[in-house]
Amino acid sequence: MSIALQLSLALAQSHSELRAQAASQAPEKSANEKLVQRIFDEELLHGRAFPILAELLHAAPKRLAGSPGAAAAVAWAKGELEKDRAENVHLEACTVPHWVRGDHDALTFANGGEKLAMMALGGSVGTNKGGITAGVVEVVGRDALAKIGDRAKGKFLFFNEPMDKTQLSTFDAYGKAVWQRGSGASEAAKVGAVGAIVRSMTTRTDDLPHTGAMHYADGVDKVPAVAISTVAADRLSAMLAKGETPSLHLELGCQTLPDEPSSNVIAEVRGREKPDEIVVIGGHLDAWEAGDGAHDDGTGIAHVVEAVRLLEALDLHPRRTIRAVLYMNEENGLRGGRAYADAHAKELDKHVFALETDRGGFAPRGFAADESVRPILAPLAALLAPWGAGGMFEGGGGADTSTLDVGGVPQGELIPEDSRYFDMHHCPRDVLDQVNERELALGAASVAAFAYLVADLPETLPRATAPKKK
Amino acid sequence: MSIALQLSLALAQSHSELRAQAASQAPEKSANEKLVQRIFDEELLHGRAFPILAELLHAAPKRLAGSPGAAAAVAWAKGELEKDRAENVHLEACTVPHWVRGDHDALTFANGGEKLAMMALGGSVGTNKGGITAGVVEVVGRDALAKIGDRAKGKFLFFNEPMDKTQLSTFDAYGKAVWQRGSGASEAAKVGAVGAIVRSMTTRTDDLPHTGAMHYADGVDKVPAVAISTVAADRLSAMLAKGETPSLHLELGCQTLPDEPSSNVIAEVRGREKPDEIVVIGGHLDAWEAGDGAHDDGTGIAHVVEAVRLLEALDLHPRRTIRAVLYMNEENGLRGGRAYADAHAKELDKHVFALETDRGGFAPRGFAADESVRPILAPLAALLAPWGAGGMFEGGGGADTSTLDVGGVPQGELIPEDSRYFDMHHCPRDVLDQVNERELALGAASVAAFAYLVADLPETLPRATAPKKK
Repeated sequence: MSIALQLSLALAQSHSELRAQAASQAPEKSANEKLVQRIFDEELLHGRAFPILAELLHAAPKRLAGSPGAAAAVAWAKGELEKDRAENVHLEACTVPHWVRGDHDALTFANGGEKLAMMALGGSVGTNKGGITAGVVEVVGRDALAKIGDRAKGKFLFFNEPMDKTQLSTFDAYGKAVWQRGSGASEAAKVGAVGAIVRSMTTRTDDLPHTGAMHYADGVDKVPAVAISTVAADRLSAMLAKGETPSLHLELGCQTLPDEPSSNVIAEVRGREKPDEIVVIGGHLDAWEAGDGAHDDGTGIAHVVEAVRLLEALDLHPRRTIRAVLYMNEENGLRGGRAYADAHAKELDKHVFALETDRGGFAPRGFAADESVRPILAPLAALLAPWGAGGMFEGGGGADTSTLDVGGVPQGELIPEDSRYFDMHHCPRDVLDQVNERELALGAASVAAFAYLVADLPETLPRATAPKKK
Repeated sequence: MSIALQLSLALAQSHSELRAQAASQAPEKSANEKLVQRIFDEELLHGRAFPILAELLHAAPKRLAGSPGAAAAVAWAKGELEKDRAENVHLEACTVPHWVRGDHDALTFANGGEKLAMMALGGSVGTNKGGITAGVVEVVGRDALAKIGDRAKGKFLFFNEPMDKTQLSTFDAYGKAVWQRGSGASEAAKVGAVGAIVRSMTTRTDDLPHTGAMHYADGVDKVPAVAISTVAADRLSAMLAKGETPSLHLELGCQTLPDEPSSNVIAEVRGREKPDEIVVIGGHLDAWEAGDGAHDDGTGIAHVVEAVRLLEALDLHPRRTIRAVLYMNEENGLRGGRAYADAHAKELDKHVFALETDRGGFAPRGFAADESVRPILAPLAALLAPWGAGGMFEGGGGADTSTLDVGGVPQGELIPEDSRYFDMHHCPRDVLDQVNERELALGAASVAAFAYLVADLPETLPRATAPKKK
């Protein structure tokens, strides 16, 4: 029997069997088992994760960095944390980019004016008045791009590599395809194209465009970039396959305004023995304005704010301090993450772990963590197995906590079930109605319990394996 | 280290790690691993589970046994299976109860007429013309019921034990609370009450009532029974706690009509070596008409119909025959299940396994199976671990397959993630919009792959441990 098969067999053991065996073979629960049970019971019976999320989305449904909504989100978060006995609640300043979509945009067939479902990618330049009219050349994959020669000259380059549905992890599929959104504009400009049209990053076939960040490479012309819905992408692709030569007209009113002042929001559950040692738990306050940022990352904010409330309500203070960091500008700049790392550069050696939650509010499956700490953290995560969240996965932190790499801070992420995530991601579907109260509560309790267990470890965690990605 | 902890640790191994280890340690995939990969890849790329479900809900959104909608569902299912190369497609007759909700019902405060959100429980008698007006006595739990004395005489007995939110398995919580819905009316009549008002079976707090089957005990007066929303239940309970004495008025137009003829729908993927040995895969065609029966059990039907289509499309014929049984009347009679067991009584010894899918169309976690076969089936389920469906859980079949207990047929069930199931169960929310295409596809592929693996086992499965429940 292979090791993989042995593991599979063990994996096949049910939660209810684990519970039954734990009950029959270990009638005495450990202190940590009791603690985790208490946190989950309290959250499932009396938790506030869902109302907290609802309040955020009511106070600041649109909250892209630099916008009035982002300022409203900061004010709401500070007030919410102050309401609930969190300690050391304060703002920490950062300066953020301010990109605005503008008051007009359209991608139409030049012949007839019919619209394709489209959103400008965040960071894109707009078009001149009158827009751009050009033909379309499709490219599927990096290899095809490398061989495109001068076929795209003077045309729109249409990036149409779909997310790979056969990947179990939709995040893995996203990771493989998202270069088209991030770099498509500059790749288009390099081959003489006048703009980039990118298939939306979703496994779903429907008519909603999914926006997201793009960036321009240094020394390359800036051409506009948009996402179109998967239905629009399939239609355009079918037309081209039939030998049609559609001409498209693009008008974009988006622009980048001067940077704006903004803030991260911080709160703490102070440690009872080593209050100067820190476990960060974080999500991001800003969101694309395509929807209301419910799963990206309203649910992460709800996890973190509720975890603080819950630990304070139960008067649970671990050995070390748990510090909630509600980051600004994850989506299009990471300026909040960088500002935090800069402001706390001198105490990064006291940051023992950083946990991010930015993968949606679905039923939790466990945690990813850096390799250096995984063997120590796996038994802690396993204590959450009775609630389905006992997994310990490969990986590390998310985008925000990655700014702590410079300090060698070990990192991790909450890993929820992800089948539905990219149905809503950066698109008009990402609203409160897509969030399930019970799934969100399980996630909030998971963050609270895991953060407590890590912050309460008797031993010191090893630092992240150097050198890490910068 | 306890066994429970060892198992937890193993459970904590990630799917991606399993994949990586399988890749590095076993570069040669087994034939079964390749087969499972092929089934999942095909379903995730080209599957039809979601359109099949959409077609069923379009053809027969309301399909309680005995109704014209149920007949439409039977006709649709036969046509759908015939379209797709399934073998031996045919109907098998059964006779079903025919309960109708009628054209009027209301539960109101006698003083003022304000309505409480309510649905009659399936099988309930109606009220006489003019209805019933009476006070209310609340009872929470069986112990309280045993001590109620004559306090409920002449009143409505209000069963208000909530589903236990702290249970990880919402099905376990349902199992603990559902006696109130099933037996509340007769328990009420035994203590002289004039009717039963039952808190809806859901972990959610909202204003939708959840219907479901009830039954009258022999020799006890038949009084009407209704479900009220959890919001209405909480409100009523708060009034009673404050010492108020509300009087309620109930009118129900429901009634039981004469039995109707109906059918199960059968199709097969014929076995290549032992075609007379059978692995049943089944779900139920009928549904409560509160919603459209999307998750209960439209998704089960979609899993089964799609599994047949997929195996035929890939020309995958296991050693034994896979027989799809789309059962009629699971919800309020189990007559389809009983008719199947009767009609096939002589070949039950050739039924090697029966797999039911009736727990919703959510992301699959694995399978439950009878203890007698669990050690043999666990390694098969584990082959689905890379898709999140590798678990082997305690339990056996569902309601429909339980009719095969008389033949000692070992049984199992698909086990999906269940956090959301009772949000929709038997209520107006159970519609197509609540089903996720990717989650449904993962379930359909799981049913196809697991059924194939079981039907293709070289050895003969042991029979179910006797004596089983009847």
